[in-house]
Order: sequence, then C-alpha cells, then structure tokens
Amino acid sequence: MKTVLVTLPVEERHKAKLEAAGAGCRFVYCGLNGATPELVQQADIILGCVPAGMIQASPRLGLLQLYSAGTDPYIVPGVLDEHTVLTNATGAYGKAVGEHAFAMLLTLQKKLHRYRDAQRAHAWTDFGSVCSLSDCTVLIVGIGDIGQSFARLCKALGAHTIGVKRRPGGCPPCVDELCLTEELDSVLPRADVVASFLPGTGATRALYTAERFAAMKDSAVFINCGRGNAVQTQVLIDALRSGLIAAAGIDVCETEPLPADSPLWDVENLLITPHVSGNFHLPDILEKIVELSADNLKAYLEGGSLRNIVDFETGYKK
Amino acid sequence: MKTVLVTLPVEERHKAKLEAAGAGCRFVYCGLNGATPELVQQADIILGCVPAGMIQASPRLGLLQLYSAGTDPYIVPGVLDEHTVLTNATGAYGKAVGEHAFAMLLTLQKKLHRYRDAQRAHAWTDFGSVCSLSDCTVLIVGIGDIGQSFARLCKALGAHTIGVKRRPGGCPPCVDELCLTEELDSVLPRADVVASFLPGTGATRALYTAERFAAMKDSAVFINCGRGNAVQTQVLIDALRSGLIAAAGIDVCETEPLPADSPLWDVENLLITPHVSGNFHLPDILEKIVELSADNLKAYLEGGSLRNIVDFETGYKK
Repeated sequence: MKTVLVTLPVEERHKAKLEAAGAGCRFVYCGLNGATPELVQQADIILGCVPAGMIQASPRLGLLQLYSAGTDPYIVPGVLDEHTVLTNATGAYGKAVGEHAFAMLLTLQKKLHRYRDAQRAHAWTDFGSVCSLSDCTVLIVGIGDIGQSFARLCKALGAHTIGVKRRPGGCPPCVDELCLTEELDSVLPRADVVASFLPGTGATRALYTAERFAAMKDSAVFINCGRGNAVQTQVLIDALRSGLIAAAGIDVCETEPLPADSPLWDVENLLITPHVSGNFHLPDILEKIVELSADNLKAYLEGGSLRNIVDFETGYKK
Repeated sequence: MKTVLVTLPVEERHKAKLEAAGAGCRFVYCGLNGATPELVQQADIILGCVPAGMIQASPRLGLLQLYSAGTDPYIVPGVLDEHTVLTNATGAYGKAVGEHAFAMLLTLQKKLHRYRDAQRAHAWTDFGSVCSLSDCTVLIVGIGDIGQSFARLCKALGAHTIGVKRRPGGCPPCVDELCLTEELDSVLPRADVVASFLPGTGATRALYTAERFAAMKDSAVFINCGRGNAVQTQVLIDALRSGLIAAAGIDVCETEPLPADSPLWDVENLLITPHVSGNFHLPDILEKIVELSADNLKAYLEGGSLRNIVDFETGYKK
C-alpha cells in the first residue's frame, strides 16, 4: 500500500477529493509545517512542499507534487532520487500573484505608499502629479501563467504590454508585443513599468544589473513578484537611491525573511511585501492545487500522463 | 472690452487656445492661488475657481467657469449675482478620480497599507488572506462621470457593479444593475465594496449613517472620493473601530485640511489621502478643462449654448 503524505492546508472536502483519486493509498495529513524526516522517508508520494533537506534522495519517493510554482530547492543535484517525478503548481498562482503585483503597481503610481507614510505622521501633504497606467508601456518579463494574468490586468486599464519570454512561441492576447529574453536590453528603455515574474534559475540570477536599471527610464517603476535573486539587494538600493528608476515594489528579496537590519526596509520609494502574493491567500489557489494534485495522483498511480512535470535543466515545467 | 480672469495653471499653448476663443477680451492670468478681491471684482468672466468670499455677488461677473466638479461654495445664496452663469468641470475628473479610488480599493483589498506599516517597522509579517475584486459586488453611489470611470475599472477586473443614481435613466454599459438613491438601503447588504462619489449638497450630507454602515457586510470596504460631509467623522471612526465594516479609504474629510490632532489619522484600516485624487495631478485634467473653458467662453461671448451649466437647486450640472 502506497503512503501519500499531504502537506496542503486541506479541508474535509479536499481530503475526499484526494482520497477518491488515490483509492487504496494510505493518506497522512501533516499540515503546512508538520513534515518530519520520518514522515518524508516513509512517503511514496508527497502532495505539497517539504524542506528539501528532509528528502535525502529517498528512493521510495515516486512523486513529489509541489504546491509552489518555484522549484529551485528541489532541482539541486542530490535532493531527489533520479526516478522521482517532480511536478510543480504552475497555473495555480496566476490570479493571486498577478493581482498582487498589479495592486503594488497602482499603489506606487498613485503614491499611496507615501500618503500612507504621511498619514502616520498626521500630515496633510500633497505629493503632486501622478501617472495613469493607460499612458504606460508595461514590460512583463516572464510571460507564463502569472505574467499573463498581470498583463491582462494592465491591458484592461489601457496599457501597452510587451511580453518577454525565453523561447519563441505564440503571442497571448494580453500581450501587444512579444520579444525574447536576448532582446531585453533593446526594449528596457521603452518601458514605463518593468514587471518581473521569473523563477529562480541559474539563467535569471542577478538578471537586473546596474546597467539594466540605468537603461530604464528614470520615471520607470520596477516590480518583482518572481524570485528575489533576480536582483542583487545593493543593486536595487543603488538604482532607487541614485534615481535610475522612480520606484519599486517587491514581494521577494535575495534573503527571506528580510533581516530586520537590512537597509532595504528604509529605501525611499520602495514598497516591500513579505512574499505573500501567493501562499494560500486567495481561496482560488488551494482549489486549483487540490485539483491538480488529485489529477496527477490518479495519473501517477494508473501510469497516465502527468501535468506540470518539471524539467531539471530549466526549473520550468517541461 | 471684457476682462477674463484665468486662475487655471495654464501653459503658453493653453493661453493661445483660450485667447483664440475669447478674441477681443483682455486676459489676466493670476495662477491657482493668485486671485485678489480687486481682480475678481474687475472680471467679466472667470475661468477657474476663486474664493467664494471674493465674489460678493459682483454684478459685473457674467460667467464663472469653475475648474472643479463640486459647486458647493458657489450655490450658497448671495455668493453669485442672479444673472451670473455658473458652469462646472464635470467630465474632467472621471479618469483621475476613478483611478485614484480604484488604486485605494486594491491597496486595501491586498492589505498593502498594512504591509507598508510593517515595512516601516522592519517587520516581515504575513497578514493572511486577501480578496479578489473579481469575486466582489461593487456598489457605486453617484454614477456620473467619475463613478462611471471607477465602475469601468472594477468591471474590467471582473467585479459585478451596481450603480446608484438620483434620477431614473439609462444604464451605462459599465453598470450591471442600476438603482435609485431611495433603494440604497436595500442594496447595501449585498455590497463587498461601497464607493461614494457624491457632490456636497444638502441631500448627500451625512448620508452614510451608523445604520447604513451596520447594514453593510462586516467584510465591506468603503471608499469616499466625493465630498467629506457625506460621512460624519465620528460615525466613520465608530464603524471602523467596532468592525461594522472591514476597511475604508477616503480622499475627503468633513474638515479639510484634516487637523493634525484628528482621531481619524490613527484609525486602523483607514487609508487617508489629502484630497489629491483630482487637482491637476493627471495631465488629462487640465487639457479637458482648458478645452471646456475655451468652448464655454466662446459660446458665452457669442450667445451660444454652454456646457455644464449648474442647477442651483441640486448643485449638479443641469
């Protein structure tokens, strides 16, 4: 009998769905942070994330269905046994993360972060002119599920959208122009908004160099809701302090949690949220992940084809 | 020769436009805050706002073309001579105020005001679940130019929109349901968002009573970008402190500027901006007002028909 370890924050109706898909299996529910090395070593299948260090290339583990879209800790050599199938949750976060990034962008454009600071100081202060997204060209770097969700929102408000992707392919309807990553430098100077939704891979590490911030408009707003290591902390601080760009909103940092003594916290015109754009903060996320997990569990047990199998070379779904 | 006093913050190209429309007139440009009682008393036409107290029912003043949509100080008996034509700037603020209100709403729904406070405290704190506008019913009280602009943005993000208006009439495409002000109490309990864009008239004063806040969902977000006297300060404080509603965002207060010792500043889950949603903070506003002013100046001088003539009974354009 196969053991399925579930770390998803499930309710009874979700359990019923998973157990119907994995009929004949033994289910262990340990909650989001309840995994132990013993539970992980006894699992044939894991639905949810566990600390990578607990896996130790367990030869028993046949399927690891993550609840994250990011796969970085699990594609490191030696973490998973070579026969373990790794699937991620791409597709579950588009709505939540896209909306969060969009709200951050509007907050910065309308200077609501500064008005909030003024409110705390009991100051009735006018910070002057603002801009309208309808007049903006928005560059979306990483135009997968999340990037497209964000692009749709920007387009709905009248923005001109440019998507940047790794591989040539069709242009989704939310994108007015599509270009490849190697063309990034040529489009950066045109953007009023640069929004990044890149996963943490070798290719995306420190992508936003000082030179690239210098290539942006000094009125540009930078948003990062992908992975924090796409920008080195000091490079971002310098870009904001020296006025290379106007403002930034980040849900991710190089080091998380961000240490209390980090200089990032107090940078003018930087809005920080603590990696909360996804999590399970919109009900939509858990529903989508449970559905995907049930489908992949069933397919795995029956030898069918799984969705969202991760390519260990790129960290993306294949 | 007629004298035209202009208090608009015009550039040279705007002056050229106005002077072409008012050929043969003498133009005096005094800037936003440069009006004096003498300048006002010498004016046959005023393009822009001046302190109401300077007008003193000047018999010379034939046309007062405001740059505001609100008309409250000017419709008070005795301010304007009975033959003075009063026109307002309805139509110029829809985009700016609609977008500001929309940004406030998303900030509150995604808890970015609280994340900003946490950032200031260097705290990496997760405030939990958020909601999506796509799951919300949005009540728009005052569905004129500004309300419709806001409604369009909400609908673009998937919200269900209910417009509330004074008089029966056609249903604009941005509104899924339309009802009359007297039906307000019956729709309040359905709303996840109540957004108010009412002008300051006798009929709208203290419209949002404690009973009406109690009728709203306790998860509701209240937005006021109309006039501050639609809600009494203490009623709003009590509604937020006692949890009758979840959060509020206001660009207007009963007393403006809000005194530094007002208890409003520190109310949990209240976001305050200092009446900045309009002003001239989007370039779009001044362009629209100059165009309207030029058109109305020409029409007035030629005996044609003017746009946006204010009805002194209601304070709205006729």
